Amino acid sequence: MNEQISINDTTIDSLGECTYPSPLKISKFIDDSQRIAIDIEAHLLEQSFHTTGTIASFENAGPRKKIFFNPETTRAAIVTCGGLCPGINNVIQGIVRMLNFQYGVKTIYGIRYGFEGLVKRYGHSFIELTPAFVHDLHEKGGTVLGSSRGHQDEKEIVATLTEHGINILFIIGGDGSLRGAYDIYQEVKRQKLPIAIVGIPKTIDNDIWFVDKTFGFSTAVSTAAQAIYAAHSEAIGAKNGIGIVRVMGRDAGYIAAYVTLASNEVNYCLVPEVHFDLEGPYGFLTHLEKRLYAASHAVIVVSEGAGQEYFTGPKETDASGNIKYGDIGLLLKDKITEYCKKRQIPVTIKYIDTSYLVRSVPASSDDAVYCIMLAQNAVHGAMAGKTGFVVGSWHSYYTYIPLSLVTKKRKRIDPNGYLWSMVKQSTCQPDFSPPQ
Amino acid sequence: MNEQISINDTTIDSLGECTYPSPLKISKFIDDSQRIAIDIEAHLLEQSFHTTGTIASFENAGPRKKIFFNPETTRAAIVTCGGLCPGINNVIQGIVRMLNFQYGVKTIYGIRYGFEGLVKRYGHSFIELTPAFVHDLHEKGGTVLGSSRGHQDEKEIVATLTEHGINILFIIGGDGSLRGAYDIYQEVKRQKLPIAIVGIPKTIDNDIWFVDKTFGFSTAVSTAAQAIYAAHSEAIGAKNGIGIVRVMGRDAGYIAAYVTLASNEVNYCLVPEVHFDLEGPYGFLTHLEKRLYAASHAVIVVSEGAGQEYFTGPKETDASGNIKYGDIGLLLKDKITEYCKKRQIPVTIKYIDTSYLVRSVPASSDDAVYCIMLAQNAVHGAMAGKTGFVVGSWHSYYTYIPLSLVTKKRKRIDPNGYLWSMVKQSTCQPDFSPPQ
Amino acid sequence: MNEQISINDTTIDSLGECTYPSPLKISKFIDDSQRIAIDIEAHLLEQSFHTTGTIASFENAGPRKKIFFNPETTRAAIVTCGGLCPGINNVIQGIVRMLNFQYGVKTIYGIRYGFEGLVKRYGHSFIELTPAFVHDLHEKGGTVLGSSRGHQDEKEIVATLTEHGINILFIIGGDGSLRGAYDIYQEVKRQKLPIAIVGIPKTIDNDIWFVDKTFGFSTAVSTAAQAIYAAHSEAIGAKNGIGIVRVMGRDAGYIAAYVTLASNEVNYCLVPEVHFDLEGPYGFLTHLEKRLYAASHAVIVVSEGAGQEYFTGPKETDASGNIKYGDIGLLLKDKITEYCKKRQIPVTIKYIDTSYLVRSVPASSDDAVYCIMLAQNAVHGAMAGKTGFVVGSWHSYYTYIPLSLVTKKRKRIDPNGYLWSMVKQSTCQPDFSPPQ
Amino acid sequence: MNEQISINDTTIDSLGECTYPSPLKISKFIDDSQRIAIDIEAHLLEQSFHTTGTIASFENAGPRKKIFFNPETTRAAIVTCGGLCPGINNVIQGIVRMLNFQYGVKTIYGIRYGFEGLVKRYGHSFIELTPAFVHDLHEKGGTVLGSSRGHQDEKEIVATLTEHGINILFIIGGDGSLRGAYDIYQEVKRQKLPIAIVGIPKTIDNDIWFVDKTFGFSTAVSTAAQAIYAAHSEAIGAKNGIGIVRVMGRDAGYIAAYVTLASNEVNYCLVPEVHFDLEGPYGFLTHLEKRLYAASHAVIVVSEGAGQEYFTGPKETDASGNIKYGDIGLLLKDKITEYCKKRQIPVTIKYIDTSYLVRSVPASSDDAVYCIMLAQNAVHGAMAGKTGFVVGSWHSYYTYIPLSLVTKKRKRIDPNGYLWSMVKQSTCQPDFSPPQ
Repeated sequence: MNEQISINDTTIDSLGECTYPSPLKISKFIDDSQRIAIDIEAHLLEQSFHTTGTIASFENAGPRKKIFFNPETTRAAIVTCGGLCPGINNVIQGIVRMLNFQYGVKTIYGIRYGFEGLVKRYGHSFIELTPAFVHDLHEKGGTVLGSSRGHQDEKEIVATLTEHGINILFIIGGDGSLRGAYDIYQEVKRQKLPIAIVGIPKTIDNDIWFVDKTFGFSTAVSTAAQAIYAAHSEAIGAKNGIGIVRVMGRDAGYIAAYVTLASNEVNYCLVPEVHFDLEGPYGFLTHLEKRLYAASHAVIVVSEGAGQEYFTGPKETDASGNIKYGDIGLLLKDKITEYCKKRQIPVTIKYIDTSYLVRSVPASSDDAVYCIMLAQNAVHGAMAGKTGFVVGSWHSYYTYIPLSLVTKKRKRIDPNGYLWSMVKQSTCQPDFSPPQ
Repeated sequence: MNEQISINDTTIDSLGECTYPSPLKISKFIDDSQRIAIDIEAHLLEQSFHTTGTIASFENAGPRKKIFFNPETTRAAIVTCGGLCPGINNVIQGIVRMLNFQYGVKTIYGIRYGFEGLVKRYGHSFIELTPAFVHDLHEKGGTVLGSSRGHQDEKEIVATLTEHGINILFIIGGDGSLRGAYDIYQEVKRQKLPIAIVGIPKTIDNDIWFVDKTFGFSTAVSTAAQAIYAAHSEAIGAKNGIGIVRVMGRDAGYIAAYVTLASNEVNYCLVPEVHFDLEGPYGFLTHLEKRLYAASHAVIVVSEGAGQEYFTGPKETDASGNIKYGDIGLLLKDKITEYCKKRQIPVTIKYIDTSYLVRSVPASSDDAVYCIMLAQNAVHGAMAGKTGFVVGSWHSYYTYIPLSLVTKKRKRIDPNGYLWSMVKQSTCQPDFSPPQ
Repeated sequence: MNEQISINDTTIDSLGECTYPSPLKISKFIDDSQRIAIDIEAHLLEQSFHTTGTIASFENAGPRKKIFFNPETTRAAIVTCGGLCPGINNVIQGIVRMLNFQYGVKTIYGIRYGFEGLVKRYGHSFIELTPAFVHDLHEKGGTVLGSSRGHQDEKEIVATLTEHGINILFIIGGDGSLRGAYDIYQEVKRQKLPIAIVGIPKTIDNDIWFVDKTFGFSTAVSTAAQAIYAAHSEAIGAKNGIGIVRVMGRDAGYIAAYVTLASNEVNYCLVPEVHFDLEGPYGFLTHLEKRLYAASHAVIVVSEGAGQEYFTGPKETDASGNIKYGDIGLLLKDKITEYCKKRQIPVTIKYIDTSYLVRSVPASSDDAVYCIMLAQNAVHGAMAGKTGFVVGSWHSYYTYIPLSLVTKKRKRIDPNGYLWSMVKQSTCQPDFSPPQ
Repeated sequence: MNEQISINDTTIDSLGECTYPSPLKISKFIDDSQRIAIDIEAHLLEQSFHTTGTIASFENAGPRKKIFFNPETTRAAIVTCGGLCPGINNVIQGIVRMLNFQYGVKTIYGIRYGFEGLVKRYGHSFIELTPAFVHDLHEKGGTVLGSSRGHQDEKEIVATLTEHGINILFIIGGDGSLRGAYDIYQEVKRQKLPIAIVGIPKTIDNDIWFVDKTFGFSTAVSTAAQAIYAAHSEAIGAKNGIGIVRVMGRDAGYIAAYVTLASNEVNYCLVPEVHFDLEGPYGFLTHLEKRLYAASHAVIVVSEGAGQEYFTGPKETDASGNIKYGDIGLLLKDKITEYCKKRQIPVTIKYIDTSYLVRSVPASSDDAVYCIMLAQNAVHGAMAGKTGFVVGSWHSYYTYIPLSLVTKKRKRIDPNGYLWSMVKQSTCQPDFSPPQ
């Protein structure tokens, strides 16, 4: 399933020997040597064993018997970067509670407005994070710390860390921010500083490589499902009613795919990973026309990153350096309108753009539990002096994965894989391109 | 409070004498002479009594002891017109159950796709509405019958009614559709046909004259409140974050006003009834700038019909003949962006347009009960041979009001009234115009 | 509709002349002479006018142009008594915001644990209520102040008020607590103290006389509707499945009645106001047996106070002096089980008791707005030196009603009235007693 | 982690050679030889490989290229057994849609009221399951087929299957019903009939061995979280307020544990797997007393099966043969009341029993997707002639596991494992028993 991963790729960096006993009052600790197989299909495992004498694996997350940092003197900081995602506040709460209650770390800074808050000239002050401050955070969407997009100079950031005596920096962020985290980690290493840099992957798109599922994703799907409900109501509420729902998903269509499976009312699911012809005998419009004749309505869900090849103008970029995508929902609306006008098919199109409604809701129970798990394991790793890694889940184990590996590429829906085949079965949609 | 209403304005038309005993097994019936005062402030009542010797009043809705239509031979039809609104299906269900279970009317047609379904050449067939068919309808948003916009010829509609022997037509629709209902009623009258034309006012904007509150409105407010939550999360999630939420409300800002009161996080509420300067010392932008300096974020809720004077291009109209409004949310976004760019204030603006998400959700319990009440009272009036009226609620009584009266003008927020003063107290916003 | 109310019954007591100008920046104030008719049916109004030359009316709530208390020196306090109800925190928030932001009253005490908090020997300290403290309260169920049941000595309470220089006491409480409020008011009057005693009626049962609807009621109904959904699922999930839902309602069955109308799945609704035979030809059990034969399932909703005549043992009382009711849900379960066992009818009974789940949820948008309205009007009245009154809503106006009047008796469902007839039509249940 | 599983334990039985080509229009099929490792910790895998030369594994679920049953002549049936659980209707819908749309199996019977529906003398008739019939099922809690508890004779059941020419029986049921499924499978085998017996594990307790998570569990947790919210509101709403929430979990405390992690407001979590002393220096009551002094309130969540050793009377059993458990929530309430009365600690205890409210809600989006996945994979296996197995998920792969294996024992929380240690960290509760 996964391309060749070398043992180096999966090895976590460490700040040094663990000399302090863990203050945790538990009976089972995890040992660094405990690892989780990357591929778990039996024949792949056997093959790998026969070829290399070993099994590619990730380090198992969890509390270590001995830790690197002295809890009494340790100072931690938490920063949240990039767009909102359900569960950010839960992760913050989980980190603070674990550090304070279990490890006895009392100084925890909340960094304001993303990496900006670690760059002096912006003038943002820190927030003291205490159990009392985070008490209700699990009930709130958004991020209590504020966020921002864009790159900041890693040297300036490291200067701030040293100035305030910060030993551990938790970075809750997506692909771009994790690359920023990697740069900070490299700069810390260059300066040989005893500072742990720890990432907690945050992306509503669920597109982090080697992470089963990112936090907030399932909450996002369940919120997006309300838009499908609305679109379906609108669609059947008019003769030839068409409901278009645009959901998040710049390069990965997971939200679109899952909301399709969850809703049972989606007739077309369009994602960035799978090209669709608009025109022509295999085109989407041709198929839609037939469906309108047969069923008098249609529901379309489309990822924001789908069909970007249909936008031909010059591209802008946002503060994070991401290319601003054309609004594929509007384009579909226009193309359908034009197509149907030509053929004198009366249609009523309702377009719903879900983005900001989906990403700011409080985490579901599932995501709440998941966020605590990630937060606690991030703390365990950090206190043990591990650095330059993210905490993730893999085959339902919690794992530590080097930042260098997870930022190498992004997870995508496999157009030939199981998920996409299920989506097509659910929608009964064909491939919108000529057979090859 | 209300301008002079004459006795004629409030008199309901009737198809003739009621000769059949009501089949309802209840002990209390309402008499046509039972009426509800229009103005209920004591000094207005006394004044009116002294002047005219009488009190302006509406007919009290409810079951009559004798009815006009023979249940055994009566055929009813239900049509839903215009945009979606939470509770339409509940009203349909309530009408069918009351007609069938209590009055014994077994033939009830569901008309498809609004008034189109009553015009032969569209070729839409009727749906047989039975208790079994409507059993789960209260759980579903939208309209099971489908809807459409736009005027249809009343002669063609009346021809369809007579052809199918329909005695009662229930029209669930908004301002435009009620005007259509009035035309049909007039045509029926011209032809001296024994057909009752009954309206159930449906408008998510809550702007029907002499109706306390339209069904679906409270559900809409509670759904729109989720968007305020999202906008607030986004706003505080960034330095100088601004969340803009556009809500329905073409000419009346009730949704914007109520969601402001319900949410406690709105800093600016802009409605069609109250002009706001954008620029200048009293302008919205100037005030917003000060707020950003003081509080670093802002949440704005705006009715779709607010600030239309800022759109200067030519106007289009939709199928209902309504002028298509400019997107005031986008305009605000652009104006704020431009203003802040000039002054080098970094801002992050998130715009949420709620419309289709709000109007297609299932009715809340409150609205569900209200819909049943309206449906039942509509049936009581129709079976008693009343025609050319709508059912409404007034000072918490259910009333019958002539179509001629309710279509005369629309309800608006009074800029000097109690509701708007509460909104201003809640947001702490000033008047955005020079003092007069 | 209402029995004879004299002018004295509706007259609000006042602490003295209003000499301070209102600091409110609004253009419309309400005058004490503005009043709202109690009965608004036209013939009753005319009759009353002819008989007495006047119209029975309540004082219209709202801001007065001149006020009694000097905002700069005024100290207010808020106490919450009795059981939880959705919206208590919203009322607290609304009072604090109106007092602080609009009137400029800066000293507001939150009293802990009900009337106990006003009795020195309990040793509860006050909470300082500020806009910051109440900022998120509208999102939270329960009461941030805590509550308690039971009577406390009014002399001790008044001693505490004077000791702390409290000028206004807002009491958020139900029937018993309002009677307590009345006692405090009387004691204050006896001592000729310039302290305003203001009630905001809080009862999830919606049984306050001369108040259209109490806050929290509609939230409670919508939450209880989830239990009906569950009971219906359970009932149809088994052959002869029976779902029993017990809802709050000691003496008034409004929750049971409204949840029945809202849900459309209830087959039997039993309330305290309407006696039901269990056994015999007209008895509930006989009818249920027939229904099981016909439909194989049944959903029953029952108020906690219904059928208390079937409990024959000695009665206990709680701290508020209320008699502890027998669990009518369990009794029905036992009686049905026994009856069906005798007749060898296999049944599966699922019993759901909703009470604590319903009363602690956050207020719905509707209730949130209503709570603010009540809170603001309570403040307006108090600042104008009115005392010994509650704020309510009557025919959709906000009114001030003397404590002496509202505590005289409780609102009940009229077994011959419109609401109960609608419930019977919805459930198709007969009277469970011999015809009279 | 898992005890020794032999290759025989994991081998799926098959009805014979697959000779029909799959009608599925997909490009990737799963081969019977594709298997998923049971233990995936690298050192266990290596150790197992060194010792046995092989790796313990489960068969990977999914569509097979060749199938056993001829879709044109195949008749399938679905039966739902035992208590309700969110998602049952989704599984039914998923099976029907996959069978009908993708495989072309048109005859699908819905069996009424559990195994009873397969025993002639009960006289329940079948329901024809079509895509139209199941269209809205994903929105509904409960089971559209009805259910029942208890064992039925497998010979009678198999007689019914043969009489109606049923080739595949899908059994959606819990531990007891899967043991029933195993008996039916054995009887079918004894008679050498070509009938596939397929289980989909349904248990809200999440206690199926070798299944990561059962469907409905996450929905149940999120619904139970509402009760925690209520209990917390009640607890802080009174001086020494105590909220007790009883949740499902006869022998496994997963719901209690997860709702504790999700809610952040639980102070005590009591589960069947972990003994707790009530009295004595390490006892629960002693600790609770200290907490009341320190924090004035407490929230307790308890599994129905916890502390059953405190019930000493004779045990009854239900129709499924399960012992009826004593109500541990009531017992705790009584014990706390008694304990506090003795020590003159005034307490206010509110007890919430969640069971029937939690199990009948519609499935969440997450569970909806999961149910479809399980349903589809159950169909793939059945069409390929596999029998005597259940479909489950293991380390995020879908797997086929022999009925003989999954019914051997039940999953439990490990008192020394990671989950329980997280719960204890979340609640800060000690072991309620003397240190060993």
